[in-house]
Amino acid sequence: MTHPLSIQLHLPAWVPGFLARLPSALDSPEERMRVAISLAEANVANGSGGPFGALVVSTESGRVLAVGVNRVEPACCSSAHAEIIALSLAQQRLGSASLANTPLGPLELVTSCEPCAMCLGAIPWSGVGSVLCGATKADAESVGFDEGERSEHWIQHLQQRGIMVHTGVLRQAAAEVLQRYARGGGAIY
Amino acid sequence: MTHPLSIQLHLPAWVPGFLARLPSALDSPEERMRVAISLAEANVANGSGGPFGALVVSTESGRVLAVGVNRVEPACCSSAHAEIIALSLAQQRLGSASLANTPLGPLELVTSCEPCAMCLGAIPWSGVGSVLCGATKADAESVGFDEGERSEHWIQHLQQRGIMVHTGVLRQAAAEVLQRYARGGGAIY
Repeated sequence: MTHPLSIQLHLPAWVPGFLARLPSALDSPEERMRVAISLAEANVANGSGGPFGALVVSTESGRVLAVGVNRVEPACCSSAHAEIIALSLAQQRLGSASLANTPLGPLELVTSCEPCAMCLGAIPWSGVGSVLCGATKADAESVGFDEGERSEHWIQHLQQRGIMVHTGVLRQAAAEVLQRYARGGGAIY
Repeated sequence: MTHPLSIQLHLPAWVPGFLARLPSALDSPEERMRVAISLAEANVANGSGGPFGALVVSTESGRVLAVGVNRVEPACCSSAHAEIIALSLAQQRLGSASLANTPLGPLELVTSCEPCAMCLGAIPWSGVGSVLCGATKADAESVGFDEGERSEHWIQHLQQRGIMVHTGVLRQAAAEVLQRYARGGGAIY
């Protein structure tokens, strides 16, 4: 066994078809969240990872830059959370380690569930200008997911860095994906 | 421009030569930290990323499973921190999203600098049993790096999860890498 020298993370094979059916722009927070929730649902339905979806959109135009789904188990990678994948793919697409100050204007991370401690820590480094969350930490923890050590003031901390946060967008629909997954016996981590 | 569907992160071209010169086992915390510091130094010397290095070793045997260096700028990926790369490569090598309960026994993350908020959040998900850190948050912040929002009780929080932490191992040598990088005008993020 030799030392591994590169990491490859792939979105599941159903994603291109999913993207082909998206409208050209997602205008409202609810439309954006509906897509994040649909990604989470499709990921579970296809057995391609955990019940979490995320996307990066242009805040103003609503154009989708990149999507992500949880790939922890299939990719053998504990960092392969939906948010990390969506942010990394958007950065790759723009050819920049920062999503701030792009020609597309401010960019928004939309995630079907409030970020865990790791993804929360990743948000300031990513350059996004805002974050939309669906299910809350309480929703995730109520079905057994561990969100890690997050400050209870996480929204204010992001806001102090100029990153706006809206949580609980389509909360019930987002939480139902987690509940259905847990009832179905999906791996909880 | 089409939607990106996969992420690839590569270690720099000098890494195989570096690995070939490593001893077969790194027994002491200092020997392990010396390798993390050397990775950080080599990354700066080769212009292949920021001044941070990390590795995953078998706690008992000292065998190196994987190494990582900061690749944020070259890879256009704000999550490509040394710790995330080392943990992901070790998981890939073992074919498991968790480094806990492997045939190799407990595994240790060795990092040339205390983890930022993102990497700190990633540690519980990774399955490592212990963490060795070189330079401290204060050392990183004194040259301008932003470590993010970390609880001041982060070591206790990891310990409550069964993850032992030792920080300040070869602290002065580790901090000097950051200081030399900053004096040399390297990008600070």
